[in-house]
Amino acid sequence: MSGFSDIDGLIAPRSVAIIGASDDVTRIGGRPIAAMLKAGYKGRILPVNPKRDMVQGLPCYASVQDLPEVPDAALIAVPAKLVPGTIEALGRMGCRAATLFSAGFAEVGAEGLAAQHVLEELAKQHGMRLLGPNTLGVYNVDIGYYGTFSSSLDTGFPKSGNVGIASQSGAFGAHLGALARDRGIGCSVLITTGNESDITVADAIGWMAQSDTIDVICTYMEAVNDAPALLAALDAARAAGKPVLALKSGRSAVGARAAASHTASLTGDAVVADAVLTDHGAIMLRDPESMMDIAYAASKKVFPKQHSFGVITVSGGAGIVASDEAERVGLPMPAMPDAAQEALRAVLPYASPANPLDCTAQALNDPSLLEKFTRAALEDGGYGAVMCFLTYVAGSRAMSQVILDAIAPLRAEYPDRIIAFCALGDPEVLQHYDDAGILVFNDPCRAVRALDAVLRLGQSMQNRVTADLPAVTPVTLPASNPDEATAKTILAKAGIMAAPEQAVTDADQAVNAAEGFGYPVVMKILSPDILHKSDIGAVKLNLQDADAVRAAYAGIMAAVGEHAPKASVTGMLVAKQLSGGVECLMGINRDPTFGPIAVFGLGGIFVELLNDVAVRACPFGVDTAREMILSIRSAAILQGARGTQPSDIDALAQMLSKLSIFAAGAGEGLTSIDLNPVLAMPEGQGAYALDAVIEIAQEGAADGH
Amino acid sequence: MSGFSDIDGLIAPRSVAIIGASDDVTRIGGRPIAAMLKAGYKGRILPVNPKRDMVQGLPCYASVQDLPEVPDAALIAVPAKLVPGTIEALGRMGCRAATLFSAGFAEVGAEGLAAQHVLEELAKQHGMRLLGPNTLGVYNVDIGYYGTFSSSLDTGFPKSGNVGIASQSGAFGAHLGALARDRGIGCSVLITTGNESDITVADAIGWMAQSDTIDVICTYMEAVNDAPALLAALDAARAAGKPVLALKSGRSAVGARAAASHTASLTGDAVVADAVLTDHGAIMLRDPESMMDIAYAASKKVFPKQHSFGVITVSGGAGIVASDEAERVGLPMPAMPDAAQEALRAVLPYASPANPLDCTAQALNDPSLLEKFTRAALEDGGYGAVMCFLTYVAGSRAMSQVILDAIAPLRAEYPDRIIAFCALGDPEVLQHYDDAGILVFNDPCRAVRALDAVLRLGQSMQNRVTADLPAVTPVTLPASNPDEATAKTILAKAGIMAAPEQAVTDADQAVNAAEGFGYPVVMKILSPDILHKSDIGAVKLNLQDADAVRAAYAGIMAAVGEHAPKASVTGMLVAKQLSGGVECLMGINRDPTFGPIAVFGLGGIFVELLNDVAVRACPFGVDTAREMILSIRSAAILQGARGTQPSDIDALAQMLSKLSIFAAGAGEGLTSIDLNPVLAMPEGQGAYALDAVIEIAQEGAADGH
Repeated sequence: MSGFSDIDGLIAPRSVAIIGASDDVTRIGGRPIAAMLKAGYKGRILPVNPKRDMVQGLPCYASVQDLPEVPDAALIAVPAKLVPGTIEALGRMGCRAATLFSAGFAEVGAEGLAAQHVLEELAKQHGMRLLGPNTLGVYNVDIGYYGTFSSSLDTGFPKSGNVGIASQSGAFGAHLGALARDRGIGCSVLITTGNESDITVADAIGWMAQSDTIDVICTYMEAVNDAPALLAALDAARAAGKPVLALKSGRSAVGARAAASHTASLTGDAVVADAVLTDHGAIMLRDPESMMDIAYAASKKVFPKQHSFGVITVSGGAGIVASDEAERVGLPMPAMPDAAQEALRAVLPYASPANPLDCTAQALNDPSLLEKFTRAALEDGGYGAVMCFLTYVAGSRAMSQVILDAIAPLRAEYPDRIIAFCALGDPEVLQHYDDAGILVFNDPCRAVRALDAVLRLGQSMQNRVTADLPAVTPVTLPASNPDEATAKTILAKAGIMAAPEQAVTDADQAVNAAEGFGYPVVMKILSPDILHKSDIGAVKLNLQDADAVRAAYAGIMAAVGEHAPKASVTGMLVAKQLSGGVECLMGINRDPTFGPIAVFGLGGIFVELLNDVAVRACPFGVDTAREMILSIRSAAILQGARGTQPSDIDALAQMLSKLSIFAAGAGEGLTSIDLNPVLAMPEGQGAYALDAVIEIAQEGAADGH
Repeated sequence: MSGFSDIDGLIAPRSVAIIGASDDVTRIGGRPIAAMLKAGYKGRILPVNPKRDMVQGLPCYASVQDLPEVPDAALIAVPAKLVPGTIEALGRMGCRAATLFSAGFAEVGAEGLAAQHVLEELAKQHGMRLLGPNTLGVYNVDIGYYGTFSSSLDTGFPKSGNVGIASQSGAFGAHLGALARDRGIGCSVLITTGNESDITVADAIGWMAQSDTIDVICTYMEAVNDAPALLAALDAARAAGKPVLALKSGRSAVGARAAASHTASLTGDAVVADAVLTDHGAIMLRDPESMMDIAYAASKKVFPKQHSFGVITVSGGAGIVASDEAERVGLPMPAMPDAAQEALRAVLPYASPANPLDCTAQALNDPSLLEKFTRAALEDGGYGAVMCFLTYVAGSRAMSQVILDAIAPLRAEYPDRIIAFCALGDPEVLQHYDDAGILVFNDPCRAVRALDAVLRLGQSMQNRVTADLPAVTPVTLPASNPDEATAKTILAKAGIMAAPEQAVTDADQAVNAAEGFGYPVVMKILSPDILHKSDIGAVKLNLQDADAVRAAYAGIMAAVGEHAPKASVTGMLVAKQLSGGVECLMGINRDPTFGPIAVFGLGGIFVELLNDVAVRACPFGVDTAREMILSIRSAAILQGARGTQPSDIDALAQMLSKLSIFAAGAGEGLTSIDLNPVLAMPEGQGAYALDAVIEIAQEGAADGH
C-alpha cells in the first residue's frame, strides 16, 4: 500500500475529464456530467468525445490529447477494448488518477483478468492510480463531485455530512448511500472499488482516516485483497479516533471447506476475518440497517466514558422493552441513587424513578418534569447515554417546541453525554431535535443497540490497549510432518509442555517407562503417517499395570497392521496419564488471508457442538491469551464452576501465547498445529499438551526455511 | 373468561356516552369527541356534563339519567371518586360496556386496588363489562370510533386495515399504532386494557380472533393475569388461521423490576411464558419493529407451503448479505435446478443464477430480465418467497411503472407465493408495488427475518399438530416432602423408573442388598429433612465391595450426625451404580401463572452454564416429549455425537411424558420435582432416575399461589 493522500486527486479532483462523454443523461458517460452540473461541481468538467463539439452544454474535446489541461481525475466510460489506449494517453499527458467504469475485465473470466493486468501495468508505468475497472465510481458531496453513474441519484442527492462509505460492491455501496440519505444521515463521500485492480477498499478507508471531512467510516467488503493494507488502514482510523463500521459478507460460505486438521474446521474465513478486523478496531456488523443506526449515532462525535444507560419514559411499557433489549446486548442500566429517586418522587408521586425512570404521561402536561427527570439521569445517574421515550408526542407540532426547550439546554450542559429520543412523526419535526444534537430513533430496541455500540466505542477509546505484540524469532521446521514425539520435542523448545512421556520400541521398554512414571499410563503409536490415531485404535488409555501395557502394545501393533499397513512406524509413545484437569484444545491454522491464527476452546462437545472458541491472529502476549481464554462462553468451567477447583489459567495463557509466537516464527512453512487435548490442571499445577500434531506445508510453501 | 363477542359493544358501539365530556379538545373528556367528529363516527355521540348544554357542537346531557337512549358504550372521564356512582347509574339504565379512562386505582397502591374492587363488584352486579380503569381506550377505524384520548392522533389518524393491536400498556399500544401508521400498515383496531379489572388482553385477542375485520393480531403484555383465558384466546386465533405476534416484556432483571412497579401484578418467568405461549401458536418477539415487519408481511394473508427462499438481485453484494442472514435465521435457500440455471445463462451470459440469482445491473436496462429471473425462481425454484433486491432503482419514478408491469402479473400467476421487493425511495412510488400485492422492505435483513417468520407460519398452518394431550388422573400426594425412597416409589407407580435399589436400616442389610444387585453400588441417607444430600457428605459413590459398603454406612451416619443432627433418618438407600449412560436432568416446577412446567436438559454444565433446556407446560404426550428432548442444542450428545452410542431417547421421552402427566394429576399440592441425574442408557437399555426429590406445597400454599 502506498500512502493514503495520493488518491486525493481521485476523490477530490479540481478538474475531471470524462472519456466517452455523452449527451444522454441516462448513459454511463452522461450521468456523471449531468449530476455534477446539477450539484454545482466546484471544479472543471472536461468532456471527451470525438463525435461532438458540445456535451450537455459544455465544450467537448475530440481526444485526451486535445484536453486544455491535465485533469486531476479521468472518468473512463469507453468499451473495454479502448481502455488501454485511453490510459496510455492520459498517463503520457500526466494524469495521475482514473476511474474505470468500463466492465468486461476480471469479473468476466480469465481473458478479462489478463486484460485487466495490462491496464495495471500501463497505469504503473505512468504512476497513475486506478479505481476499478467495473466500478460505480466515487462521489464527494462537499465539492459537488459525482464521478459515478449510479442511478441512486435519480431518487435524490446525498446529504452532506461526516459519514463516509467505502464499498467493494458498487450497487451495495450506493444502496448504503441511499439508505443514509433516506434516513437523513449526512454522508459526503462514497467510494466503490469494483475489481480493485489497484485501489482497494483499504485505500478508501485509509483516505477517509486522514480526511478532514469524514469522521465515521462505513465499509462493505466481500474479499480481503490486501490484508496488511486493510489492517494498516484500520489502525490509521483508530489512531484518528474514527470508528470503522464493517459489513463483511460471505459468512454462509463458512464450513464448506473440507478441513485437514481439527483446528482448521473451527476457523472458517468469516470467523477469522471477524476476529482479526475486530482486533484492529473495526465494528463488525451483519446488516446495513444497524450500520446506519450506529453511523448516525457516532456521527455526533460524542463517545461517553461511561458504558451505562438511562431511560426516561412516558410509558412504563416502553421502558421495559428498552430494558430487556439493554440486558440482552449487555448494556448496563444501573438504578438511580436512592436520594435522587426520593427527590424525583417528591416532584412526582407515583413516579417510578429507578431506571427506567417513568415520569408518566404527566410529563406531557408538564414538560418541566421531563427536564427534571432527564437532568437527574445525567447528573445523579451519571449515565453515558440517556434516552427519552416520547413516541408520537415528540413528533407532534404542538409539543415539539416545548420539548425542545426543555431538553436542548441539557445538551450544552452535558456535552460529553448522549441524549436520544425515541420518537415517531413528521421527519421535519424530528429534524429539529437532531439539529439540536439530540439523536432521534423511532424504534427503542434499535436505539438501544446503536447507543450500546457507541458507548462501547467510547470505552475502547478510553482503554486504548498498549500493543501486546511479543518478539518473534524465526523457527526452523522439519521438512515433513513430525511424529508425535518429535512434535512435542519441537514445541517443548518453545516452552510448550507435554505430559511426562517416553518413546519406546518394544513392550519391555514400554513397561519400564510406565513403571518410571507410575501408573496409569496411556500408549499411542508413533507414526508420521497416522494423524488421527484414536480413529484406528492406535491409542490405549488408562493402562493400570504391566500386563495391560503389554497387551496394549500388541493391540496397537495389530490395529496399525490392519488399518494402516503401509504407515511408517517409529515406535510407541508411553505417557503418564494425567487426570483431574479440564480438557482444552489449542491450535494454529494458517489462514490464506491473515496468516497463522490461534484457536482456543474447551475440549470435546464444547468445541464440536457449541463452536465455543476464541480466535486470534498470531503472535500475541500472555494478557491477550488470558483475555481469549476468559472470553469463551464456557470459561466458567475453568474458573471453578460447580465447586470444582479453578484451573491453571495462567499456565494455559502462557502456553497459548508461546504457541502463537512459535507459529508466527514458523512462517508459511507451518500449515497447522493441533494440541488436543491440552489438560489444564488445577491452579498452580500447570497445563500439559497430551497430544500434538504439526502439519508442515507441502513442497514449495516452505522455501523460506 | 366469558365469550368474545360480548364485548362487541365496547369495540364497535352504535352509540357512545362520554361522561365528563369537555369542550377542550386537549382534555381527556374532549379528545374522543373531537376525534370521532373528525373521523366521522358512524354512531351517535352522547356527551354528559352537568355544566354544559352543548359540547363541541353536540347536545350535552346533564347526567347519565338524562341520556335519551341506553348507549352501547360509555367512556368515563371523571375523577376516581365519581366513578362508582357513574357506573351504578350506567348499570341501572342498562348500559353493558364502559371504558374507564380515570386513573387512581390499582396502579397507585392498596387503597386504589380496594377502590377498583368496588368498581368490579358494581359492574358485575349489572352485567356490565369494564375496560380499565387507567386505560387509554379503544379505537376502531372502520366505523370512525375513537374511544380513546391518545395524543397519537395529533400526528395523524391510523390507516384502515386488517391488523389489530391488543396492549396492556396504553402508551406502548398507541406507539405500536403510530408505528404501523407511519409505515403505511393498515391497523383498524387498537384495544388497550390498562389495569384489567375485568377485560384483559386475552379478551381483546379473543375478540379479534372472531372479528371479520382483523386478520393479524399484535399484542403487547407485561403480565398474564388470566392464563387459561389467554391460552384459549390464542387457540381461537390459531383455529381461525390468524397469526398472533406477541411482545411480552419484563424479560430482564431490570425489565422485571420495572414491570412490577408499572402494573399491579408480577411478571411471570419469561422463559416459561415464551414456551407456553409459543406452544399455543403465538410468535414471541422482542422488539416492536420486527412485530410490525411480520404483521405487514402476514397482512397479505399469503402463507406459502414451502419454507424456502429465493433472492433475485441486481447487486451481488446484496444477494450475499441476504443469504448470510437467511442462513443465520435458518431459512433454506436451495439452489435453482441445473436446467433452469442453464436456461437463465442462455438469456444472460455471466449471470450467476444459482440462488441468489444475480441478474446484474443489466436488468435495469432490460426489465424483461427481471421478469424472467423472478418467474424462474417461482416456477423452477419453487421458492415459498422470492425477494428482488432493487434498492433505489425501484424507488425511481422513471423505472417504477416498467418494474411494476414486469412483476405484477407474476403476483396473479403465483397467488400462493410471496413476492417482495427490497427498495428505497419515495413512499408514494413504493406504495404502487404494495398495492399490487408485492411486499416492500427497505432493508434486506429485516425482509429476510419477516419473510422467514411468515413462511414458518405457513409451515405451522400446514402441519397443524393433532393435540398431544394425554389423559390425566388425579394423584394423591403425601402431606409433606417424602424421602428419596418414598419419592421413587411414588414415581414408580407413575411408570418412572429408578435404578435397582433397596432401603436398609443397618450395614449388614446394606451389604446383602449390594451383593444382590452386584457391585459397584451407591449409598445415600434416607431422610425427608435432607434435600441436598451430597452437600453434607450423605452420598457415597462407586462402592466396590462389602468393606466399602460398611465403611460408607458408618461414614454417612457420622456425616449426618455432624451436619444434620436434628434430621429424622429413616434408613439408608443402597442402589446399583449404573454407568455408561448420559446424565440428564428432568424436573417439574410449578409456575404461578401457568401451573406445572416440565424441564428437560443434559446434566451439569449444560444446564447450569449454558441454560440449554427445553420447557413445556404439563401434561404432554410422548411425541411432544421427544420433540423437547431433540430441541436442546446439546441433543447431538444423546444422538451419538463423536462416535459414541446413541442414548435411549424413547425411554427418556416416555419418562418425561409420564412425569408431566403425574405433575398435572398432582395439582397445586406439588411444588417441584427434581430427577437429577436421570441416566439415559444406550439405545434399548432404558433411562433411570438416580435421584428423586419431590417438594410438597406447604400448608395453605395450595389455596392459590
